[in-house]
Amino acid sequence: MSAVSAADPAAIDPAAIDLAAIGAMDKADPLSAFRARFVLPEGVIYLDGNSLGAASSAALAELGKAAGQEWSHDLIRAWNSAGWFDMPLRLGDRIGRLVGAAEGQVVVTDTTSINIYKALHAALAMRPGRSVIVAEGGSFPTDLYMAEGVVSSRPGTSLKLEGVDAPTIEDLIDDSVAVVLVNHVNYKTGELRDMAALTRRIHEAGAMAVWDLCHSAGALPVELDAVGADFAVGCTYKYLNGGPGAPAFIYAARRHHDDIVQPLSGWWGHARPFAMERGYAGASGIQRFQCGTQPVLSMRALKGALDIWDEVDMTALREKSLALTDLFIALVEARCGQYGVSLETTRDRARRGSQVSFAHANAYEVMQALIERGVIGDFRAPATLRFGFTPLYTSYRDVWDAVGILEEILSSGIWKEPRFAVRAAVT
Amino acid sequence: MSAVSAADPAAIDPAAIDLAAIGAMDKADPLSAFRARFVLPEGVIYLDGNSLGAASSAALAELGKAAGQEWSHDLIRAWNSAGWFDMPLRLGDRIGRLVGAAEGQVVVTDTTSINIYKALHAALAMRPGRSVIVAEGGSFPTDLYMAEGVVSSRPGTSLKLEGVDAPTIEDLIDDSVAVVLVNHVNYKTGELRDMAALTRRIHEAGAMAVWDLCHSAGALPVELDAVGADFAVGCTYKYLNGGPGAPAFIYAARRHHDDIVQPLSGWWGHARPFAMERGYAGASGIQRFQCGTQPVLSMRALKGALDIWDEVDMTALREKSLALTDLFIALVEARCGQYGVSLETTRDRARRGSQVSFAHANAYEVMQALIERGVIGDFRAPATLRFGFTPLYTSYRDVWDAVGILEEILSSGIWKEPRFAVRAAVT
Repeated sequence: MSAVSAADPAAIDPAAIDLAAIGAMDKADPLSAFRARFVLPEGVIYLDGNSLGAASSAALAELGKAAGQEWSHDLIRAWNSAGWFDMPLRLGDRIGRLVGAAEGQVVVTDTTSINIYKALHAALAMRPGRSVIVAEGGSFPTDLYMAEGVVSSRPGTSLKLEGVDAPTIEDLIDDSVAVVLVNHVNYKTGELRDMAALTRRIHEAGAMAVWDLCHSAGALPVELDAVGADFAVGCTYKYLNGGPGAPAFIYAARRHHDDIVQPLSGWWGHARPFAMERGYAGASGIQRFQCGTQPVLSMRALKGALDIWDEVDMTALREKSLALTDLFIALVEARCGQYGVSLETTRDRARRGSQVSFAHANAYEVMQALIERGVIGDFRAPATLRFGFTPLYTSYRDVWDAVGILEEILSSGIWKEPRFAVRAAVT
Repeated sequence: MSAVSAADPAAIDPAAIDLAAIGAMDKADPLSAFRARFVLPEGVIYLDGNSLGAASSAALAELGKAAGQEWSHDLIRAWNSAGWFDMPLRLGDRIGRLVGAAEGQVVVTDTTSINIYKALHAALAMRPGRSVIVAEGGSFPTDLYMAEGVVSSRPGTSLKLEGVDAPTIEDLIDDSVAVVLVNHVNYKTGELRDMAALTRRIHEAGAMAVWDLCHSAGALPVELDAVGADFAVGCTYKYLNGGPGAPAFIYAARRHHDDIVQPLSGWWGHARPFAMERGYAGASGIQRFQCGTQPVLSMRALKGALDIWDEVDMTALREKSLALTDLFIALVEARCGQYGVSLETTRDRARRGSQVSFAHANAYEVMQALIERGVIGDFRAPATLRFGFTPLYTSYRDVWDAVGILEEILSSGIWKEPRFAVRAAVT
């Protein structure tokens, strides 16, 4: 066990780890019981929960109830009787607990892209003398595309990017900046930002902070209220296991609620949606970020997933996440280092999310070969092997076995076979 | 049968209709077999399919497969193997057949509200010298709220409303108008617009037409291509039976595809979403109206619903719809006319959607009493009883029985009991 509780992967001695040691780690895992709550396919080691989280029995049961009972039998009445109408707010509060937000500040609605649009507009409206949006050149692209969309519809505004207009995001923050849009964990490298320090820096410059939590919500403890974040967005289909394309969430700090102005002013954000009034009057509170009718069935799967999250201790989750990634880094470097893989993720625990990326010149082909052998990770262009570690259903044994298969694929060179070079539509 | 094939309800002799005549109508109904494809609760006459369409066995089966097989077992691979990624376009084409759109012009995505926002922005961008959006004061409110949102984010633009700024929409259309947003069927009165004539009038003034099909898609034949509509939006959870909050659709005429610019420029609308490029480059075609990741589970229920629609002849659907509403109007007027109900829907078949509204001073209480007796319609503020007629699963016997129950409620005055005045959150 000492190998796993070490502070960083360099402190692990891979030679000291064998199947017995791995078995001991799983036995000592305080989260191990959660695995039985998920429906996982046979013969698969799933290291892609950071793209699409696994299905749980609870999510499937909620979905079945929503469709087979509520929709089928209660029909329109279910909007009241089954609480469909309030679901975005109730689920928002439950996500709030996982991201450090007190009640009434998170709502589940629309997509991450659209919520970014809302948050950027709201932030710009609250900083009328300022015209610059700052974001990361290495951001998940849709963040930048949506920022471009905001700029296109607000004359006089502009977008500046870390890695393009300046080396670091801090270099870009001055008194022209209205809002900084930043990913808590980078989707590709797994780099974790210091949310407290960067939010402080943004506020010192008089700007607003919008945090994208897609790769941190459900992966590690997030403290939105404590760090004084202004807005945040995130998806629910990765670590939160809400189901494919499950609706996203948006957070606004309570101190901003009376000042939120955003142009996606649909009826679900109206103070009295069913009064059918002619003019828009925004609801008080986080409801003002709602727009149109939400996908109830997808949202009900998310509800089931969140039933499990209610039981999770986020500190234990984080400790296991780091132990899994420490172990994976140490084992891959020891056993596969000679085959052209090089670590893209930091060794520093304080700056690491719950994923590990390795560069390899033929990352696409290697990932296809891994998938054929049942180890499912992600390829990210141009040359990244990305592996997500979801502490609720990933075991130390999974890590051990995945590294063994990766070693076989690299040492045998089987990934060079032509079938692994065929490109699928979505990779 | 002669009573039902009459051109308008005034031509029906209610005294000539009895249970035997009703039975004959159902027996002769060419769409009667579709009813068995739906899961309908016992003891309910559902006249609210224009708020939330009924569940079908096909929709429930698709949902079960998507969740229990694809999500649970295929996991991330299902984006390719189960065709999740292309679903918005494939389902869009199937809706296209129902609304008169040739392939490649409809995509299923986001909500009606958000699609209105996209369409209005796109239309304004294509009419740079013009600044006015025209809409209907009696529109479903979210259309107006979204138009307000567009105006707020495009300095110099303004919104003019039928019923506020002029008596008719035609009076408002001049060469200052960039775009006219109009409901094909009014949500409250059921009034059907002449899409061909109004589109022609809009085009003569050099403006663009955005049609809201929420209450016509799946209710009657729509001919978007034939009338030369520019854009259209609609929901899929009413007549199309896609499930609660199922994603909406948006249409753009092919001639506009190269010119679409809209600010919700998310990664799903990018020409190469998985190349993870830094700058936004809109996809060609209708894909450019996509934005973020869509709710797959909700979309799969819609797929099941559309499997049924593939078999439906829209001309037969329209004929039955009119026969049902003719019959309902004639019977209600004959049997309930003395109890203070007055018709709000036109008697003119050419201007009638698939719903009938009656005004009653105590419409809320009367509707609550109807619902308690198993007749589910809608109350619409301030004083409208609204009944939707969905030809796929509503029979002539349903109409007959519903009118009988309405007559009992009105003649007995039972609706005056205090419990019927209690207001629910969503009505």
